[in-house]
Amino acid sequence: MDNNKIRIGLFGFGVVGQGIYQVIKKAPNAHAEIRRICVRDINKPRSVEIPAGLLTDNADEILHADDIDLIVEVIDNAEASYRIVSSALRRGIPVVSGNKAMIARHLPELIELQRRHDTALLYDASSCGSIPVIRNLEEYYDNDLLLEVKGILNGSSNYILSRVFDHGESYSDALAKAQALGFAESDPTFDIEGFDSLFKLVIITVHALGVYVSPDDIFTYGISSIHDSDIRYAREKRVKIKLVAQVAKVGNGCFTMFVMPEFVRSNKYIYSVDDEYNGVVVRGECYDRQFMFGKGAGSLPTASSILSDIMARRHDYRYEYKKMHYLDRPSYTTDITLRIYVRYRTTPVLDILPFSKIHEQYISDDSCYVIGDILLSELIARRPQLAANDIFIANTSTFFEHLD
Amino acid sequence: MDNNKIRIGLFGFGVVGQGIYQVIKKAPNAHAEIRRICVRDINKPRSVEIPAGLLTDNADEILHADDIDLIVEVIDNAEASYRIVSSALRRGIPVVSGNKAMIARHLPELIELQRRHDTALLYDASSCGSIPVIRNLEEYYDNDLLLEVKGILNGSSNYILSRVFDHGESYSDALAKAQALGFAESDPTFDIEGFDSLFKLVIITVHALGVYVSPDDIFTYGISSIHDSDIRYAREKRVKIKLVAQVAKVGNGCFTMFVMPEFVRSNKYIYSVDDEYNGVVVRGECYDRQFMFGKGAGSLPTASSILSDIMARRHDYRYEYKKMHYLDRPSYTTDITLRIYVRYRTTPVLDILPFSKIHEQYISDDSCYVIGDILLSELIARRPQLAANDIFIANTSTFFEHLD
Repeated sequence: MDNNKIRIGLFGFGVVGQGIYQVIKKAPNAHAEIRRICVRDINKPRSVEIPAGLLTDNADEILHADDIDLIVEVIDNAEASYRIVSSALRRGIPVVSGNKAMIARHLPELIELQRRHDTALLYDASSCGSIPVIRNLEEYYDNDLLLEVKGILNGSSNYILSRVFDHGESYSDALAKAQALGFAESDPTFDIEGFDSLFKLVIITVHALGVYVSPDDIFTYGISSIHDSDIRYAREKRVKIKLVAQVAKVGNGCFTMFVMPEFVRSNKYIYSVDDEYNGVVVRGECYDRQFMFGKGAGSLPTASSILSDIMARRHDYRYEYKKMHYLDRPSYTTDITLRIYVRYRTTPVLDILPFSKIHEQYISDDSCYVIGDILLSELIARRPQLAANDIFIANTSTFFEHLD
Repeated sequence: MDNNKIRIGLFGFGVVGQGIYQVIKKAPNAHAEIRRICVRDINKPRSVEIPAGLLTDNADEILHADDIDLIVEVIDNAEASYRIVSSALRRGIPVVSGNKAMIARHLPELIELQRRHDTALLYDASSCGSIPVIRNLEEYYDNDLLLEVKGILNGSSNYILSRVFDHGESYSDALAKAQALGFAESDPTFDIEGFDSLFKLVIITVHALGVYVSPDDIFTYGISSIHDSDIRYAREKRVKIKLVAQVAKVGNGCFTMFVMPEFVRSNKYIYSVDDEYNGVVVRGECYDRQFMFGKGAGSLPTASSILSDIMARRHDYRYEYKKMHYLDRPSYTTDITLRIYVRYRTTPVLDILPFSKIHEQYISDDSCYVIGDILLSELIARRPQLAANDIFIANTSTFFEHLD
C-alpha cells in the first residue's frame, strides 16, 4: 500500500456529498483528499464550510484534470450522473457512484465500459447504504448455493411505514418527517412507489445471480395508496406491512423478482427492521439464512459506505461480475403464482385481475378486499389499472413461506 | 478467470471435512476438485462415500505433491494444524484453514510466513462459521470509524444457554444435545469455557483494529459454572445471559477486549440471537451499528464458508492486514472498570476481589451474589481464584451501555 493520497473529484455536494466531506476528514488512514467539488450552483449557501476554490461548476475541471485519481459521483440527477460516469470511465478514470437509478438503468453498458477501458466502477453505497451487500454477494456468497435475497432496501419508506404502523401517525406527516430527516430522496415517489428498492434489487440481482433484468420488466408496487383499513387488517392478523424487494430461485433453472408491500409475520427477520433501517436476508442451500442489518439512509451512513468504496480503490479493487460468466445462469421468469391481498373501493378489481383462485373476499360500503392467487405476469400486464387510487396490493404468499 | 479446476489437498475428514466434500459437489461453478484427503486413520468407517485412493495418512503426499494448488485444513488438533499450515506456507502453497485455536496462537508468525513466501492463508470460516466477519472487517469497515465489535461468536455455548434459559433444560442435557448435533467441538471445554470465542476475538481484533493480542493476555470466562440461581436472577431482571466477546475502543488511543457472560437486555440486537446462531454487532462512528447474523456452527454452514475462501483463492484474494500498517493503531488496555455480577457460595469473594464500589449485595444460605465495580486487570490477576466451582461471573456493565 502506498501512502500517497488518493485524489478525489467529487460531483454533488448535497446531503451525501457533504457527508463524504466530513467522513474523509475523520478518517486520516483513508489517505483520501477531495481536490475539487463540482456543483450546479457555486454560490448556493452551504452548511458545511469548505476552502475557497474547491468548488467548480465546470465538470471538465474534474474530468480533464491530471491530478484526479478517482471520481466520486453523488448527484441527484440520473441523466447527468450517466453522462459524468460514462465520460469518466471512457477516459479510464475509476468512479465510485451512489446513483442507483442510473446504475440500474445502464449497468450492462457500464460493465462493458469498465472492461473496455480497464477501469472500475464501484457502487456498494448504492444498495442499502452502509450494509455491504454488493461486495458480499460478489465475493462471498457463491452462486450455486445462493437461493434468495430478500429485504427492506429503502430506508425512507420503511421509516414512513414504521411511523404510520407503530406510532399511529398519518401518512403525510410521516412522509414530511422522513424528508426533514434527510432520509427521503428529493423526489419522494422514488422511495414510496418502490423504485428506489427496485433499482437496488436490479443491482443486487446482477451480483447475486449474474443476471441483469431491466427495471421496466419487474413488477414494482409501492406504499403510497396504503389506507387505514389496510393497517387495521394487518394489525388484526398480527402482521406488519413492509415494502419488500426479493429475488429468488424458483426451480427449473429460473428465478423471479419483484418489489411490493408484504404482510410480514413476527417470526421473520425483517419484521423487526424498523425506522430508517434496512435489512437483507441472504438464503443459501448450506448456510441457511444470513441476516444483515444496518442504517440504510442518511448522510453519514451512506458517506461511510462511499468511503469504503474509496478505500477499496486504493487496493485496486473492482467487481469482477464473475457470476455473469457462469454457464448455467438462471433465467428470469414471471410465470409464478403469488397469493395477494387487494384492497379496493370502486375499481372492479375482480373484473380486472384474473385470479386463478380466490381464498377470501370481503365487501363493505367503506372498503373491500380480496385475497387470491394470480400469476406475476398478469400483475405486470395490468400495471396501469392497478395504479388506481383506491387500490392497495400486498403479497401474502405462502409461496415463499419456506424461503424467508 | 480461468476455468481450470483448483486442485485441493484436504487435511481432515471429520464433520467439517465431510461437509466441504459435499458442498463442493453441489457447487460446480466453484471449479474446485478435492485431489487427496489426509486423515489419521484410513480405515475408519465413514458415513460419506468417497472414491478409493482419495484417502492417505501421509501428509507429504499433499505437501510435496505437484498437482495441488491449495491446501484446506480442517483438522481438530491445533499442534498438527500448525505443523501442516506452516509447512505449506513455507513451500509457498496457499492454505484455507478453519482452526481458530491454531490461528489465534500463531497469527503474527503466519502473517510473516505469508509475506515472506508470497502466499496466502485465508480463514474466514474460523470466525463465526458462515458470517463473513473477517473479510468485511478487512475490506469494508475502515479502522478510523470503527468503534466496537461485539457478539456471540460460539454456536454451541449459545445453543446450550438457549436450551437452559428458554427451555428449562439441565445444563448437562443441553451440552449432550449440542454435541450430538455436531455443534460442540470434540473437547467441549473449548466452547463452554469461552476459548473458542476468545480465539475468534483475537482474530477479529487483528482485522478490526490491526493489533494482535495474545490469547493469554485476555480475560476469558465461560458458562460451565452457571447455576439455577443465576438463571433465576436473570429472569427476574428480564435479561438473558449470553456468552459475549467484545473488543471496543475506550478513548485515549486505547481499546479493551474480553470474553465473559453478560446480562443482555431485550433492546439489544444480540438478545435475539438464539440456538446455534452467531450474531455480530459492528459499531462505527458514522454508520452507527451493523448487525450480521447467521449460523455459526455445524457442518454445512462452516463448509460453505470454507468454499467462499476456496473461491476467493481462484481470484488470488489474500488478506492485506492493512490496519497493521497504520501509524496510529490503538493500544490494548485492561485498565478499565467493569460492573460485574459475581454469584458465589463459600468462596470469600469479597476478600478476593478488590471492588472499587459495591452496588448490590445478597447473602443467603443457598447462594450469594454481589454486583460491583472492578478493574479488568484485577479480574485477570485473579483468574485462578475465579475458577472456583461455586463462582459465576457476568458482565452487567453500564460502562458499555451506549456501545451496543
